[in-house]
Amino acid sequence: MPELIHSVKIPEPALRRLPWYLSYVKLLRSHGETIVSSTQIAKKIDVSASQIAKDLSYVDISGKTRVGYDIDELINVLESFLGFTNTHRAVVFGVGSLGAALLSDSGLEQFGLKIIAGFDVNAAIVNKQINNIPVFHSGEFIRKNEIIKAEIGILTVPPGIAQEVSEYMIRGGIKAIWNFTPFRIRVPDGVVLQNTSLYAHLAVMFNRLRS
Amino acid sequence: MPELIHSVKIPEPALRRLPWYLSYVKLLRSHGETIVSSTQIAKKIDVSASQIAKDLSYVDISGKTRVGYDIDELINVLESFLGFTNTHRAVVFGVGSLGAALLSDSGLEQFGLKIIAGFDVNAAIVNKQINNIPVFHSGEFIRKNEIIKAEIGILTVPPGIAQEVSEYMIRGGIKAIWNFTPFRIRVPDGVVLQNTSLYAHLAVMFNRLRS
Repeated sequence: MPELIHSVKIPEPALRRLPWYLSYVKLLRSHGETIVSSTQIAKKIDVSASQIAKDLSYVDISGKTRVGYDIDELINVLESFLGFTNTHRAVVFGVGSLGAALLSDSGLEQFGLKIIAGFDVNAAIVNKQINNIPVFHSGEFIRKNEIIKAEIGILTVPPGIAQEVSEYMIRGGIKAIWNFTPFRIRVPDGVVLQNTSLYAHLAVMFNRLRS
Repeated sequence: MPELIHSVKIPEPALRRLPWYLSYVKLLRSHGETIVSSTQIAKKIDVSASQIAKDLSYVDISGKTRVGYDIDELINVLESFLGFTNTHRAVVFGVGSLGAALLSDSGLEQFGLKIIAGFDVNAAIVNKQINNIPVFHSGEFIRKNEIIKAEIGILTVPPGIAQEVSEYMIRGGIKAIWNFTPFRIRVPDGVVLQNTSLYAHLAVMFNRLRS
């Protein structure tokens, strides 16, 4: 699997740009295009053609000089490289407003994220379902995860318990934490941490609006 | 308003770190603490004490040497500086899975974002409500926004129409676009653009899990 070799090396900024290219070439395909060059992508996206060619060099595809990339092949290779064609099993910890919203967002599954359960301590939602996904009591997680084997834990608990819940998830076998809380959690080596702070993005947007 | 002067100057990375400090000092307050030093914050968050002191220098607060910051004051100043205490009126364009999830997430209002309407072309949801928020037909936006006066547009449409919908929102008076699509939209000078690509974050997480 060449992806395994490449994936070790690709820098995060390049990795973050790949979904932009994917999105744009999918749009081109929907318009009937079959070939795309890095110059053509560059015209639509604020990234230079040479940077695009370099980013795509991490992926197992080669363009033809003065012709470009085959669009179908590029889409397949990018989706596979980005992990969107695999199924990654996830649980949501903290089924409050944001957690419930993520359970309801079936769109994530098209990108390889399958949420299989929610966990919370609130009796009003434990043993209920949201979007056909069961919500269990948090205390059941370690036992449940021996069966459901989720590897990704989505963290949407109150910030005050974010650290302890992360540690609990890791004890239950979680290998990657997607942290939506504004709290800066710490994880041991070997556990993947991805922060998505909607509140930090809001703060930047509000600040720029005022300027 | 000193914030206006400061807000022009604060670099984005510093701005993005401020919510972490806010989250941590709110936790300290809930434990009964009244004073915090940058050294103490640094111990819990992977940022050096000198960086924290520098970041906080953009905000209108001064710590006492060898004592620290008054926690209540720090929380008030940070919340105000970050715009979380103001109300920013927003609309959601594209009430699909993610858009509906964002309409359902009342938690954003505590951070100053008030979603007042959704817009879509799908007859099944137009003129319905989600979380007591009305959903209107997209074609009504320009006329509606003369009355509801939203300044932030949350973009959750299919990537293929992301650019044209952005331009339409801007014609209707939107001053900032919060782009959740994987499409790299372009906006004219003076319009604020904030990208939150959940799919890029997923891609990074999947890649790191494989390595």
